[in-house]
Amino acid sequence: SDSYSLLILPGDGIGPEVMEQVTRVIDWFQANRGMSFDISTDLVGGAAYDAHGTPLTDATMAKAQEVDAVLLGAVGGPKYDVLDFSVKPERGLLRLRKEMDLFANLRPAQCFDALADFSSLKREVVAGLDILIVRELTSGVYFGEPRGIHADDNNPENEGGRVGINTQRYTSGEIRRAARSAFELARKRSNKVCSMEKANVMESGILWREEVQWVHDNEYPDVELTHMYADNGAMQLVRNPKQFDVIVTDNLFGDLLSDAAAMLTGSLGMLPSASLGAPMENGRPKAMYEPVHGSAPDIAGQGKANPIACILSFAMALRYSFDEGEAAAELERAVEQVLADGVRTADLMGPEGGVPVSTSGMGDAVLAAL
Amino acid sequence: SDSYSLLILPGDGIGPEVMEQVTRVIDWFQANRGMSFDISTDLVGGAAYDAHGTPLTDATMAKAQEVDAVLLGAVGGPKYDVLDFSVKPERGLLRLRKEMDLFANLRPAQCFDALADFSSLKREVVAGLDILIVRELTSGVYFGEPRGIHADDNNPENEGGRVGINTQRYTSGEIRRAARSAFELARKRSNKVCSMEKANVMESGILWREEVQWVHDNEYPDVELTHMYADNGAMQLVRNPKQFDVIVTDNLFGDLLSDAAAMLTGSLGMLPSASLGAPMENGRPKAMYEPVHGSAPDIAGQGKANPIACILSFAMALRYSFDEGEAAAELERAVEQVLADGVRTADLMGPEGGVPVSTSGMGDAVLAAL
Ligand SMILES: CC(C)[C@H](C(=O)O)[C@@H](O)C(=O)O
Ligand SMILES: CC(C)[C@H](C(=O)O)[C@@H](O)C(=O)O
Repeated sequence: SDSYSLLILPGDGIGPEVMEQVTRVIDWFQANRGMSFDISTDLVGGAAYDAHGTPLTDATMAKAQEVDAVLLGAVGGPKYDVLDFSVKPERGLLRLRKEMDLFANLRPAQCFDALADFSSLKREVVAGLDILIVRELTSGVYFGEPRGIHADDNNPENEGGRVGINTQRYTSGEIRRAARSAFELARKRSNKVCSMEKANVMESGILWREEVQWVHDNEYPDVELTHMYADNGAMQLVRNPKQFDVIVTDNLFGDLLSDAAAMLTGSLGMLPSASLGAPMENGRPKAMYEPVHGSAPDIAGQGKANPIACILSFAMALRYSFDEGEAAAELERAVEQVLADGVRTADLMGPEGGVPVSTSGMGDAVLAAL
Repeated sequence: SDSYSLLILPGDGIGPEVMEQVTRVIDWFQANRGMSFDISTDLVGGAAYDAHGTPLTDATMAKAQEVDAVLLGAVGGPKYDVLDFSVKPERGLLRLRKEMDLFANLRPAQCFDALADFSSLKREVVAGLDILIVRELTSGVYFGEPRGIHADDNNPENEGGRVGINTQRYTSGEIRRAARSAFELARKRSNKVCSMEKANVMESGILWREEVQWVHDNEYPDVELTHMYADNGAMQLVRNPKQFDVIVTDNLFGDLLSDAAAMLTGSLGMLPSASLGAPMENGRPKAMYEPVHGSAPDIAGQGKANPIACILSFAMALRYSFDEGEAAAELERAVEQVLADGVRTADLMGPEGGVPVSTSGMGDAVLAAL
């Protein structure tokens, strides 16, 4: 079969240790499922800054553009708080998203049955939860110009004399392509999309609502579409998250809402994400896969981190980049099996107990289940 | 004693019916506590649009500037969805906030003991919860220029040919005054402030963080201050809301986070808010009080609405506008008594039952408890 090219960017904090378990899983698929991966590894975030004075070198950026998929661990840490905005670890991640044009960020919020009691929400509110947030990832207030902090000296009423500016800017085309991703995905699920914005307050929200509706009416009339203000969306996610199937929203709302949704499941250490762009010449979409959790500097290097989110991100790569849906499902079943068997990293250890394992112990268990 | 001037703006949906109960409570304080209120009533939102073609007339705006306090019910409804952005019901509310310069929006998220089982969160996560979100209310992306939807015809890559723009803009002075409100309030509570922004992504967030820190270091070094990214804040509110005392954040983040926090308590129909500005000549702050819940058009006019949020908003007026802290506490105790007695509007009716009452029945119960 084909050989798939992968760029692995472990990054900072727990990134390297969870990624180590993913490489073991990749090896397993090479050895047992006749797949062949051409893997290179490089630096991103604080690790890249430490080595090169920049959170992403041009050489790494070029490599990312060429491969079939990027796997990223996590970036950031308190050590880098003092750095200038332009070289903070996050800029490396944002540059990858922007230059690869990864406009559709897929964030499933799924509650694993074995972990339902782990949520701060009542079991009946979250058990069986399976929603998908599609977050626009390359535009909005993350990237809009003008931006910056300026002197505002001529304004005697402004105590402090500075002004900070960011611009929320969306084109109709940017909204439409994100909406199409959401409708496509909904068709493979429960066929329902809820779009969230603040059209009652922001003109960019009105444009968002109108363009999502346009794509629906012209191209996906078979999918059920509703609209909700994002503040109500935040409420409804807490009140009754199972009312949703696919949620589509902008970059900044998606950042907050997907984190809240992830936390509902009680499975933060479990949740993967995929960031997809337009198809390349070989038909595969530009793609980056990463766990939803961050770099967790407080537990880094101690073998405590849960590698499952990163392993499931690789499962998403199998499905969305390589069309290996069967292999993806096989890996996901292995993870469920391990959870059902009570195998638990520290973050998953609840009052009901379980078999405590380290990061690599969880890797062992997944490999054994495969 | 003094006479206090009040402007009552019942607004749309359930606004008028919940406000009716508040006027009964006001009458009680006039009859029994020697207070004297000079009350006028006027239109706002869709109701004002229906009568005058604008969601807030200049005459009403002028009246609002003169009174000691405004009490607002709620604005909006699907009937007005078709209206142009500039005359939508919300514009009336936003004009009041902006022109009265009500920069500090106080949103307590309190879990009433009798209602703890009502939350979608586990009892132990929310029982006893008492946090206060201070949301900046007159600036940020709600009001920043440039804004609007424009043609983008010269951009052949923009399918749809439009662009929507809003501007997040904060001055250092705007941030400092919101921060001062938060620190002042924290001193009367548990002396802890957590400030939330996206300083890892937005320069306006960096300015926010720096100015809040400046106010802390120079004026409130005795208060404990922490900073958190807003996405993590959304997570932490779901995971363990009791870690917070006062949260201070910007207009848009405050909109989402305070709604999520309100929903955590399971008491959405119970939560009041105060929007405060600078002191007037008489020493009282410019002020508007309103329930956190919206106009709930689906149940409007049926006597089902819970008037407690609006009644507790009047309690906040007693405390923050009229320095009648004792009377405010008396009213709050009456509400707690009624809840403990099992008196329940439809929204509060859980599996454990209770005494079902209508909107006016709840008003009766509060008056009886007073
Ligand atoms: C690390 C940070 C720049 C990033 C974001 O804000 O998008 C993160 O919170 C995320 O959600 O992936
Ligand atoms: C009605 C709307 C304009 C308003 C807002 O967005 O501020 C509301 O959601 C609120 O939180 O008071």
